[in-house]
Amino acid sequence: MFIPRKVLEEKLIRLLAEDIGQGDVTTAALVPADLTVEAEVIAKEAGTAAGIEEIIILVETLGLSVKAEVADGKGVKKGQVIMKIFGDARTILSVERTLLNILSRMSGIATATRRLSEKLEKAQVKTRIAATRKTAPGMLYFDKKAVFIGGGDSHRLHLDDMVLIKDNHLVVGGSVEAAVKTAKQNASFTKKVEVEVTKAADAVKAAKAGADIIMLDNFSPQQIEETVESLRKAGFLGKVLLEASGEITEENLLEYARTQVDIISLGELTHSAKALDMSLEISRIEKKGKELGSKNA
Amino acid sequence: MFIPRKVLEEKLIRLLAEDIGQGDVTTAALVPADLTVEAEVIAKEAGTAAGIEEIIILVETLGLSVKAEVADGKGVKKGQVIMKIFGDARTILSVERTLLNILSRMSGIATATRRLSEKLEKAQVKTRIAATRKTAPGMLYFDKKAVFIGGGDSHRLHLDDMVLIKDNHLVVGGSVEAAVKTAKQNASFTKKVEVEVTKAADAVKAAKAGADIIMLDNFSPQQIEETVESLRKAGFLGKVLLEASGEITEENLLEYARTQVDIISLGELTHSAKALDMSLEISRIEKKGKELGSKNA
Amino acid sequence: MFIPRKVLEEKLIRLLAEDIGQGDVTTAALVPADLTVEAEVIAKEAGTAAGIEEIIILVETLGLSVKAEVADGKGVKKGQVIMKIFGDARTILSVERTLLNILSRMSGIATATRRLSEKLEKAQVKTRIAATRKTAPGMLYFDKKAVFIGGGDSHRLHLDDMVLIKDNHLVVGGSVEAAVKTAKQNASFTKKVEVEVTKAADAVKAAKAGADIIMLDNFSPQQIEETVESLRKAGFLGKVLLEASGEITEENLLEYARTQVDIISLGELTHSAKALDMSLEISRIEKKGKELGSKNA
Amino acid sequence: MFIPRKVLEEKLIRLLAEDIGQGDVTTAALVPADLTVEAEVIAKEAGTAAGIEEIIILVETLGLSVKAEVADGKGVKKGQVIMKIFGDARTILSVERTLLNILSRMSGIATATRRLSEKLEKAQVKTRIAATRKTAPGMLYFDKKAVFIGGGDSHRLHLDDMVLIKDNHLVVGGSVEAAVKTAKQNASFTKKVEVEVTKAADAVKAAKAGADIIMLDNFSPQQIEETVESLRKAGFLGKVLLEASGEITEENLLEYARTQVDIISLGELTHSAKALDMSLEISRIEKKGKELGSKNA
Amino acid sequence: MFIPRKVLEEKLIRLLAEDIGQGDVTTAALVPADLTVEAEVIAKEAGTAAGIEEIIILVETLGLSVKAEVADGKGVKKGQVIMKIFGDARTILSVERTLLNILSRMSGIATATRRLSEKLEKAQVKTRIAATRKTAPGMLYFDKKAVFIGGGDSHRLHLDDMVLIKDNHLVVGGSVEAAVKTAKQNASFTKKVEVEVTKAADAVKAAKAGADIIMLDNFSPQQIEETVESLRKAGFLGKVLLEASGEITEENLLEYARTQVDIISLGELTHSAKALDMSLEISRIEKKGKELGSKNA
Amino acid sequence: MFIPRKVLEEKLIRLLAEDIGQGDVTTAALVPADLTVEAEVIAKEAGTAAGIEEIIILVETLGLSVKAEVADGKGVKKGQVIMKIFGDARTILSVERTLLNILSRMSGIATATRRLSEKLEKAQVKTRIAATRKTAPGMLYFDKKAVFIGGGDSHRLHLDDMVLIKDNHLVVGGSVEAAVKTAKQNASFTKKVEVEVTKAADAVKAAKAGADIIMLDNFSPQQIEETVESLRKAGFLGKVLLEASGEITEENLLEYARTQVDIISLGELTHSAKALDMSLEISRIEKKGKELGSKNA
Repeated sequence: MFIPRKVLEEKLIRLLAEDIGQGDVTTAALVPADLTVEAEVIAKEAGTAAGIEEIIILVETLGLSVKAEVADGKGVKKGQVIMKIFGDARTILSVERTLLNILSRMSGIATATRRLSEKLEKAQVKTRIAATRKTAPGMLYFDKKAVFIGGGDSHRLHLDDMVLIKDNHLVVGGSVEAAVKTAKQNASFTKKVEVEVTKAADAVKAAKAGADIIMLDNFSPQQIEETVESLRKAGFLGKVLLEASGEITEENLLEYARTQVDIISLGELTHSAKALDMSLEISRIEKKGKELGSKNA
Repeated sequence: MFIPRKVLEEKLIRLLAEDIGQGDVTTAALVPADLTVEAEVIAKEAGTAAGIEEIIILVETLGLSVKAEVADGKGVKKGQVIMKIFGDARTILSVERTLLNILSRMSGIATATRRLSEKLEKAQVKTRIAATRKTAPGMLYFDKKAVFIGGGDSHRLHLDDMVLIKDNHLVVGGSVEAAVKTAKQNASFTKKVEVEVTKAADAVKAAKAGADIIMLDNFSPQQIEETVESLRKAGFLGKVLLEASGEITEENLLEYARTQVDIISLGELTHSAKALDMSLEISRIEKKGKELGSKNA
Repeated sequence: MFIPRKVLEEKLIRLLAEDIGQGDVTTAALVPADLTVEAEVIAKEAGTAAGIEEIIILVETLGLSVKAEVADGKGVKKGQVIMKIFGDARTILSVERTLLNILSRMSGIATATRRLSEKLEKAQVKTRIAATRKTAPGMLYFDKKAVFIGGGDSHRLHLDDMVLIKDNHLVVGGSVEAAVKTAKQNASFTKKVEVEVTKAADAVKAAKAGADIIMLDNFSPQQIEETVESLRKAGFLGKVLLEASGEITEENLLEYARTQVDIISLGELTHSAKALDMSLEISRIEKKGKELGSKNA
Repeated sequence: MFIPRKVLEEKLIRLLAEDIGQGDVTTAALVPADLTVEAEVIAKEAGTAAGIEEIIILVETLGLSVKAEVADGKGVKKGQVIMKIFGDARTILSVERTLLNILSRMSGIATATRRLSEKLEKAQVKTRIAATRKTAPGMLYFDKKAVFIGGGDSHRLHLDDMVLIKDNHLVVGGSVEAAVKTAKQNASFTKKVEVEVTKAADAVKAAKAGADIIMLDNFSPQQIEETVESLRKAGFLGKVLLEASGEITEENLLEYARTQVDIISLGELTHSAKALDMSLEISRIEKKGKELGSKNA
Repeated sequence: MFIPRKVLEEKLIRLLAEDIGQGDVTTAALVPADLTVEAEVIAKEAGTAAGIEEIIILVETLGLSVKAEVADGKGVKKGQVIMKIFGDARTILSVERTLLNILSRMSGIATATRRLSEKLEKAQVKTRIAATRKTAPGMLYFDKKAVFIGGGDSHRLHLDDMVLIKDNHLVVGGSVEAAVKTAKQNASFTKKVEVEVTKAADAVKAAKAGADIIMLDNFSPQQIEETVESLRKAGFLGKVLLEASGEITEENLLEYARTQVDIISLGELTHSAKALDMSLEISRIEKKGKELGSKNA
Repeated sequence: MFIPRKVLEEKLIRLLAEDIGQGDVTTAALVPADLTVEAEVIAKEAGTAAGIEEIIILVETLGLSVKAEVADGKGVKKGQVIMKIFGDARTILSVERTLLNILSRMSGIATATRRLSEKLEKAQVKTRIAATRKTAPGMLYFDKKAVFIGGGDSHRLHLDDMVLIKDNHLVVGGSVEAAVKTAKQNASFTKKVEVEVTKAADAVKAAKAGADIIMLDNFSPQQIEETVESLRKAGFLGKVLLEASGEITEENLLEYARTQVDIISLGELTHSAKALDMSLEISRIEKKGKELGSKNA
């Protein structure tokens, strides 16, 4: 997920414009046009930084200078300065909330993802944490990027990048076997085909039909182990990827991870993301010596 | 917050378009074009419904029929059918996730707001719950509307609808008193002026200077009581609104509410919203008897 | 200037969306969702109707019904009902101001244009009134269309539809003669070439060089007559069109028109348009018998 | 009303793009790509400058240099140079009309507002001039900002920033009293509530019901005085703001202003704005020494 | 590639709006507003129809009726009626060119794809024709869909749906082996990994490193056969997909196809598409009996 | 056709954004963020360069440096370096395909146009080659500009810049004579009027009625000569422009050109454009010494 700066700028400015409306009336009423300030973005709780790159682009686009003190993916401590921003006081105060909303949402998602990823690393399992498409509406790029920064897998980016046959497709498309075969035949060779199954037998059928990935939906750890065993017997273990989804929590994560499932995907990483608390504090004030009409006024 | 249907349609279609990308490859590969289905949106946990009106508009815009079984603001039980949708199978399967993302986020926000609101109602205090601008970026309208449906106050809708003088404005704008006076003078007479204070004395000064609302930031319940007392002595109690913000949780909510503060605003209602779990299940399948080129094909 | 309905809809909805912002808070607070009303748009002064077609599209797009009592270009009397609108009360109240802003601006422009056009008709001269590109920014289509409805000529629609060599182009492009020749050579054969001149001799040179239209900028009626005479002598009269512009007012209009100039263009028709006073009045109220989820709810 | 530069840029470029269409054919045909010019924007009549800040942003965004000779809100004399612009000749000639349309419209609005404001100042009354939502469609920000620069109040910025109960809302919402109470209960505490009344008695009822502002619609100066007297007796004078609207002209302005009304709002400031006449003149021409591919070519 | 109707509408209307500009001046000047016509879209040469579904959506969105006589993917003969359109004469004449441009481009692409696909079918090889990302800029969806309708594979839809390591990535990313391994590690498990190789040895290394697809760039048929042989020996034949690209023409297609390569991708299908000649002819004219303000006026 | 840089930027970024989708996954997986490269765009076949100006704007907008080695309209040889681009490796690799798609399409169109134009020049006829509106949908500006660069005439830019009465308009609008008269009367004086005729007699009638241009549709060279003769006799030769269209190919071009027709327009220049083959090759790699947060990171 690399988006050229200019394309990302437009996404960011659209988010800002929504909050600005017809203009920031507080800033207009109180903040002189000839004031320059330095502000610090400060973590108010510990976590994993994410969104740093996006915020650098946002504030530079607005004609401000920025110095990040922490890179995406790095840990931040409570009270730590994440970045310093310098420039026009009115602009900084007008972008404050949008900036914090993006940064704290992305950091919150990265923090939760990192916590789970590290749990898996410590347990020395190879299972990976993955996102789902259960993001905040309109925030696909930002939510997925945050999961990636937290050490997770972005999973599908939207509906056009992989075939994922879910329960409702099966209602329409027939058996797991038939659906996988139809999908392999109709979809582009560039797409992987994943299918959701609800029992071990279907996992084997899916593998036989050519599925690249099998989603074990709402399986208990024990059911997963049985499925793994069935696949091993049928000679498919290691040849298809196994993704577990549903009913998995931070508490039972390791039980699932120890089943040899390849991926564990969790909707709550993004649909119920807890923002990482941050604030922006002005640390210095200066008068501008600028003339009317100068660049980036 | 009433937005004419057509204007809302555009917001909703933009959210959908992001998820669709260059097209839903799974649906294209598996679902015939001549299939009509009925689907049910089902609550997988109890809560308060929100986003019903928005989803009705979204699905009708897509040429589908919809019958809501629950109205915005009403309680839903686990397993309850929230709405039934009928129409083109490909369209329903392609919109499924965007639809659920909007509905479950809005319902999650409404559910949390309702829980807090009811706590206040039961305690028979007049204090109201309010949102902040700490929404998911780009989701201002949806997040604010969900808080309103849950019985809360939307607070500012963006930066143009009220003067709210916060700590950083005070760093630039001088004393609470000076800032309120400047704001009253410079801002339109149509705007209320709110100011954030950090001690009781400033609350009295703010009231004297003409503030309409005083935000008590990170006050303990006891500090609020002292502030209320100071305002009473100065003759301002009941003439300015008091808003408490910061450090307030579901646990200590009533302690705050009992201080005679008018509004309690909580960022986590929206910045750390927990989605209400829902799913969409196909309940019936039909062949279309449609001709090429018919309306809403 | 014919724009297919759907393309026009988007222009109109963008104008409406700006006024709506995050939602109409008055309507939301006071107007029940289950109310249907009939409203009348009433002229509060006499003039020429314009924008009827655009407003029909706007209100129908919003799911309302509309019956125009006056067609574009027809005269309206003080107190006359221009159109009746029927439908959802919230929608009608939210669109009221945008609707009136478009209709009264367009009608105001058409009214002024018609007054001047009729003055010319009565004087039995063939000269036509024309618009300029001095419109309200962003309102090109609407302002030009209103001039047309008032009996005027739209003139250029923007910068891509004709070559019009003005004073500043001549500063760069050399003599009138050279500039016209260069333009004829470089521009597409599909474009007419018009050039602004400041003296009679240049008009003849322009005609010789092949100009299709000659703009007589800030000429007195007498100067125009001398120019006409020069062109006649050189054999170009009737072969080029003559446009007078600058310093022309309602008072001296006929003096200009009698000079045999073909077109008189006036910036103030659009840059200083006086809106035609109108209001929207609710004339009837009904309860809806509608179900949740019905079409155009 | 402060909008960060980048957000304003997009509004401005959209206005320009409309006028450009598929390209400026005159400039392409006549103006060499390697020419740099200096141009002056000159006032052709006296007035108050407005839109300077917006035009600085527009021309800098296009890669041009600009030096404003007059600041927003300052008086300009006939013949005075308002700003100098320097850069690519083709760009300057292509933006000329859009630039002048914005600047002369905003300056025209500011000029009229200033004239009325000064009349009030000289008469030593405290009444303020205010705008309405009767702007050119799509020009809300620009028209409101111009009124502000001219010394007036912007009033509501759109439909989301204050409750303003007008005649049509009362048709639906019941008595003035009932409507104000309903609005106070249903609308966010962050919004002021204004109500339109047609007789003195209703003004008192509105004040009792808690209205923040009372609009006296189409009142004669004498009726306003009676209303003021009624409010004084009922103890509300000075506690609610009074806004007069309708039938007020430059001639009778002082009669209204002397009634102790707080605000006088006039739709014609914006719906029938008279543009301030201006022109752009090229003052110097240079050959560029630029290479293909250099920055801001 | 399935896009819900409403989302597709917006793409189509944007294409139309570009051609309309500020309005169709010919239609406005000549075609009465109260005229209804029937028009036929007629193939002027034989080929494969594509874009039928898109055009049905476009014309229905404009309030017209349409009856397709040919479905997407079906053959059309010279002179055959492809569809009949009925409705407002002005609308049909204004959309004529945009409609034909989309339909004839898509049909041209489908026709060429079908010709090559059938050549392969007749030769009874399993090789499939595929598109590339060498489309007309902005036409990704339409060009890819047309290739699919013609019996080809859409290949990547844009940059986010598969890892395709090309020559320039290898310049930066090291050896084929290293690059594939890095990609497998860094990219989401949902993405296939394809790599471009320039010699047989690299193909084997790519397969060993875990590539899903190997692109044989500018290989001769003989070189492909050697590569196939190497892969067979190494045990990878049938486990990776082989895509041939570069220097392949209609003439040498079968030579390539007979090498057991799985996919042959051709840029010219889309970057040098030859439009299928079509025209739109009015076949019937009627007067409308419609009133002002009726639906779809 | 001159579009200010910033307005063109938006068109270009929209084309790029479509190809990027949710992000370039290959580049993200393989290319380090701290890498700077130089790349060369190389012609793989001989032709005429076009799109150079557009691509300079595109790459500079993305924060890259560019040095064009060839100017628009100049010939390129096989193997020639067209431009060098320098900057962030990820950005260059992400924009590669969009850049080449624009450049090779525009150069392909210019190459074909130039070939035909030179054929006419060599034959020493004055006839000019012209484009039609048969462009790739959405590519009007780019396709027309390419024809112009190749020495052709852009013809109409869209539907608003000239009246062109075609067969379908005549079906509705009556005889050639009547239609031309109606158009002259109803359309703005700023528009030329062109009409399509199918026989010599109609050409004379069209000229009499005041047509500026006459389109001879599907005429044989002999029929054109007869028409020329008829016009000569009627005294209109040299007073109207003659455009031949339909059935004209590279082979019979000179036969048509020798008939004294003024313009020959060919749809295939743009609707069946053959792209000029090009590639982008990385020529140098460097490590960046950049800090987080620096401009144009």
